[in-house]
Amino acid sequence: MTTATDNPIRNGVDTAALFATLDAVKDNNDIAKFQFRASNRWVSGTHNRSTIHGFYGAMQEMEHATAHTFDADHPAVLVGSDKGPTPVEYVLHALAACLTAGIGNIAAARGVNLTSVESTVEGNIDLLGILGLGGGEVRNGFQGIKVSFKLAGDDPDKLRQVVEQSTARSAVYDVVTNGVPVTIEVEAG
Amino acid sequence: MTTATDNPIRNGVDTAALFATLDAVKDNNDIAKFQFRASNRWVSGTHNRSTIHGFYGAMQEMEHATAHTFDADHPAVLVGSDKGPTPVEYVLHALAACLTAGIGNIAAARGVNLTSVESTVEGNIDLLGILGLGGGEVRNGFQGIKVSFKLAGDDPDKLRQVVEQSTARSAVYDVVTNGVPVTIEVEAG
Repeated sequence: MTTATDNPIRNGVDTAALFATLDAVKDNNDIAKFQFRASNRWVSGTHNRSTIHGFYGAMQEMEHATAHTFDADHPAVLVGSDKGPTPVEYVLHALAACLTAGIGNIAAARGVNLTSVESTVEGNIDLLGILGLGGGEVRNGFQGIKVSFKLAGDDPDKLRQVVEQSTARSAVYDVVTNGVPVTIEVEAG
Repeated sequence: MTTATDNPIRNGVDTAALFATLDAVKDNNDIAKFQFRASNRWVSGTHNRSTIHGFYGAMQEMEHATAHTFDADHPAVLVGSDKGPTPVEYVLHALAACLTAGIGNIAAARGVNLTSVESTVEGNIDLLGILGLGGGEVRNGFQGIKVSFKLAGDDPDKLRQVVEQSTARSAVYDVVTNGVPVTIEVEAG
């Protein structure tokens, strides 16, 4: 079996750094405590814009190399100005991105080579819920989400096992399937 | 009380179109069945890119005015190349964006004027979970999310009620707090 030490950079992942990070976290669990953040500002109607820049992790305040801004809106058919994707589409992107990042890391750690990873994510939603027309029977969010992966690289069975492990260790998959407590504070005036 | 008919465009929302849409959906519930989608392609390591363009809704295939692409990655401290926000940060953005879009719509429908809506979203996560070092005791996803809104406009009590109603009707808030069934299909070879 090929091990990570044979090829420290695999699938674009620095496996030596990955294993060193795991060792550092084992020595001091506080390194693993992170807080991620987004700030958002309403523009007009359903159009608003978020900025993602700073976060806390590895026992210090940190920043991404650049500040990222993202516009969200509703499409015209939903009486928006279509200045960006809908919020729910960003959730689908986040789910695909998290599973795919995990696939890259886990394949590298296992010595499995990837040549391509593609996915499509479909989320079905009945807007009777958010429109308040569902009589309490229709939820606001997606009724179900389907992710379809197509991978190429080493042995297909190993690739499938990598997807399984990525799912078992995905932050966004956990959030989307199991839910998270959310508190909302309002300052109005 | 000011009603929507006094001012069809309020907060940038075409309230006449909004109420017409509600009437159309009441007449034919199938108009409300939507499917949103994202497609994703692995780039290298934990870096990957999603495209959001087409969706199904109002009984037809539709497209956003433009295709949107978004890069996601892990930061350097997590052995990524920091080519974009992390997937979990996109979830925080989606939550803020959905609640804020709802605030715009609901305030307009109620005849409440907004001058500004700002929010920050913080999500705490212990990476012992996704690193497989939590001994099964630490979840992969956020342990909790806090959203802090600051609104200005009409009467503060009305603004607070608008936030409450937006929360009660938010698709992403529902997804993030209650979870959604996700199925994953893999084609490898």
